Amino acid sequence: MNYKMIGYTLGWILLFEAGFLAVPLITSLSYIGSEYDKEVHALIAILITMAICAAVGYLLKMLRPAKRVLYARDGLVIVSLSWILLSAFGALPFVISGSIPNYIDAFFETASGFTTTGSSIVPAVEELPKSMLMWRSFTHWVGGMGVLVFIMAFLPLGGAQNLHIMRAESPGPTVSKLVPKMRMTALILYVVYFILTLALFILLLFDNGADAANGKMTAFDALNTAFASAGTGGFGIKNDSLAGFSTYSQIVVTVFLIFFSINFSSYYLIAKFRFKDALNLEVRVFLAIVVIAIVSVALNIYYADIGDAVYDVANNDYGENGYSLGNAFKHAAFTVASIISTAGFGTENFVAWPELSQIIICLLMFIGACAGSTGGGIKVSRIVILVKGVGRELKAAIHPRQVKKITIDDRPVDNEVVRSVNSYIVCYIVVFVVSLILISLDPFVTDLTTGFTAVSATINNVGPGLGAIGPASNFAGFSWFSKIVLSFNMIAGRLELLPMLLLFAPSTWKKN
Amino acid sequence: MNYKMIGYTLGWILLFEAGFLAVPLITSLSYIGSEYDKEVHALIAILITMAICAAVGYLLKMLRPAKRVLYARDGLVIVSLSWILLSAFGALPFVISGSIPNYIDAFFETASGFTTTGSSIVPAVEELPKSMLMWRSFTHWVGGMGVLVFIMAFLPLGGAQNLHIMRAESPGPTVSKLVPKMRMTALILYVVYFILTLALFILLLFDNGADAANGKMTAFDALNTAFASAGTGGFGIKNDSLAGFSTYSQIVVTVFLIFFSINFSSYYLIAKFRFKDALNLEVRVFLAIVVIAIVSVALNIYYADIGDAVYDVANNDYGENGYSLGNAFKHAAFTVASIISTAGFGTENFVAWPELSQIIICLLMFIGACAGSTGGGIKVSRIVILVKGVGRELKAAIHPRQVKKITIDDRPVDNEVVRSVNSYIVCYIVVFVVSLILISLDPFVTDLTTGFTAVSATINNVGPGLGAIGPASNFAGFSWFSKIVLSFNMIAGRLELLPMLLLFAPSTWKKN
Repeated sequence: MNYKMIGYTLGWILLFEAGFLAVPLITSLSYIGSEYDKEVHALIAILITMAICAAVGYLLKMLRPAKRVLYARDGLVIVSLSWILLSAFGALPFVISGSIPNYIDAFFETASGFTTTGSSIVPAVEELPKSMLMWRSFTHWVGGMGVLVFIMAFLPLGGAQNLHIMRAESPGPTVSKLVPKMRMTALILYVVYFILTLALFILLLFDNGADAANGKMTAFDALNTAFASAGTGGFGIKNDSLAGFSTYSQIVVTVFLIFFSINFSSYYLIAKFRFKDALNLEVRVFLAIVVIAIVSVALNIYYADIGDAVYDVANNDYGENGYSLGNAFKHAAFTVASIISTAGFGTENFVAWPELSQIIICLLMFIGACAGSTGGGIKVSRIVILVKGVGRELKAAIHPRQVKKITIDDRPVDNEVVRSVNSYIVCYIVVFVVSLILISLDPFVTDLTTGFTAVSATINNVGPGLGAIGPASNFAGFSWFSKIVLSFNMIAGRLELLPMLLLFAPSTWKKN
Repeated sequence: MNYKMIGYTLGWILLFEAGFLAVPLITSLSYIGSEYDKEVHALIAILITMAICAAVGYLLKMLRPAKRVLYARDGLVIVSLSWILLSAFGALPFVISGSIPNYIDAFFETASGFTTTGSSIVPAVEELPKSMLMWRSFTHWVGGMGVLVFIMAFLPLGGAQNLHIMRAESPGPTVSKLVPKMRMTALILYVVYFILTLALFILLLFDNGADAANGKMTAFDALNTAFASAGTGGFGIKNDSLAGFSTYSQIVVTVFLIFFSINFSSYYLIAKFRFKDALNLEVRVFLAIVVIAIVSVALNIYYADIGDAVYDVANNDYGENGYSLGNAFKHAAFTVASIISTAGFGTENFVAWPELSQIIICLLMFIGACAGSTGGGIKVSRIVILVKGVGRELKAAIHPRQVKKITIDDRPVDNEVVRSVNSYIVCYIVVFVVSLILISLDPFVTDLTTGFTAVSATINNVGPGLGAIGPASNFAGFSWFSKIVLSFNMIAGRLELLPMLLLFAPSTWKKN
């Protein structure tokens, strides 16, 4: 293990985190005039945290490793430690400013931010200082594409290790190399990310607040929503998430959540006019799932006998005994996009929806977005490989001598990839079950649905669950122990398990 | 596809079923004096069903195939069709006698019997004729070891196809050949089964009814309980399952459920004084899980603040505010044995237990018994292979060039077996998810727990679930469509998925 190189890289991570904090710092400075009492503590907290990050980062960077070589193991350990460190130091502004006085709560919230989960322990977000809201949203944006990939794009860390790091941090079973150089690939993906985020921000600025309980989106609202959507994170800036914004904004966000759930290399291919390659099997399956889910949920909630009591009648957006067909489709589309992208924004309290819709929502949590997007979950490409594997197994049972490789888009899938997908699923089940047992020790978990979806919402980086942690509730009620377990799940889920599991393997820490 | 040979074998199956019906026939004849009104319809129904089975069986047997060769595909199709046919004809006595007037209900009940699931749609079993109760219990006993394995042990079907059939019908990732000849292996296993069942029956006859609400066990009660325990089925003959029998009987059943969950070849090895081989890794892991689960559940329900209201105070078997330590251990042991063996008998309504216990019960449902036992579930050996696979994957990430085979009991596990376990898990997830969606269309399924555990209880052949289908409830409330889906799950689960899934693969029905 190249400890010096690990320390050196972690030092860079902290220096970057000090830089990231400039975003809430600027926010704080621009609101300190109008909201002095709220912002003054936040401003001081941000400055202190920047100083701490810079100092610790600088000290670590002084390790100056002689050997710059990283083995696969070192790369994986760097990635997991980076994410833990980012959350650990990123939590400080919340604690120091008093916005979230308890450190474990703040760590949970920050890990939820960077991992783009969006599970929150803050009961009323509107009471937080604007700068703290911005920090939450910005952590989503930073975490969405991967912190180390970001750093890699700008920093000359060296050759081969880039691939290890990118593989560990990019979602999905394989990493698509768009151009021969990994660093260039990372840069291209960041450019796509930046353009899409900017487009969403600009479109949200056009919101005129028609039919919105919260009125027009301000530039602050639009920027936060754009960050949180781009990272498919889901932290809201209003107590009712996006329910109080206009139908226009909700539809824009719905469409962009779908965009951010698609492999970013597809956009690069579209820009190169390679439309057929862009619309690959994974994207087609993803879009098919989205359409089927929207239609099923919409019809289910339209025809279901949902009592009026559940919904805000004053809003005048549904019929005598439930939703109008239009609203059923709008809310179904928003919820499906929000869940399959693993953002987890809410417009409706889907815990009150009929069972079929809840089960579909639950399944979408697990499926998640496409590989190479900012979304979480198991990823559509893995599901495709798994289902094709079942087909191959059935064929093998019928004609045992004619076992062929799985193909995707007419290309054979490497057995190595199939094996890694299978072992991912098993790791997934193991982490899921162990977490479920650990959090069921918590008296807050009083039913199977709450426990099951708490694990599912965190490991898949979705945010809200069902039961006691639906979109209208939050995670504040869990014990500190459960919060640590769920924070672990969020980071493990974001890094697709292996890097975090390695921290527990004794042989990781053995000398070679 | 050798259709003639398939028809011929199915003919034999029906002839055997006519023979199996002798057991309820004798029961009916011995009770017709004392319970004439109940038994007379049952007696006629049994005779009519015997005639139908014999006639259809004889006609099918007349197909007399020229070629007796069976390919893997034919073997798998024979197994799945046999189980469907057994349930379809075995349901007739219930319908004709009027005990279960609806055919789909009767099919569900019979499939639940043969697959040793034990999920019931009968709300008050004590009202059924004794012969029908005996038929239910006897289907458990027949299905426990496998119907075709039974037939194979007595019938000269021919060489190689025996292996295909045995592989399809025996639970677990591999089939242990105790002796070179498959037929002899089947016979040895049936002898073990017979001896263990007899031992249980005799021990239950010693029940003196102390502390029992239902009094002493009669010979009828003992025989039924022995059949249902041996097959790890779980159909009760009392409305309160085994709760009303003595502590002595409950402890005897607990111990024997553990016995029936262990690979039967272990008993053969013990008889050969090969103790070390008998106590192989799977058995050791199984026993460790049982002990850990019992202690966890016992302490959880002992310390939990369970209100008196939930339990029968008249029974005088718990303290002021919950269980005494002794009773906590007794009920925990019974429930753990009942669930991990996938029998599903009840002494306590565990739906009222605290969340941790419910989650442990839910996990035990999935783990299930050892391979080569009469129990269901995923099987401990598969879990061991999966977990060892994760360990290998972690090691491979650390030292990519030193990937070794998994070993169990110092023997390397074939990559073929590892692959089949992985694909089993994926098939399992696919069947699980599709069933969950289908039954959630049912208005009876009003919460995630009910839907989730209904699928889990049937696919794992356990019997009761949680939520609305706990041990104190039953499956009668489901729609006919859900009952068909769940019946499919029971048979698919019993045959470990592949044979039933093949029925849906178009290439199964193509000509070679």
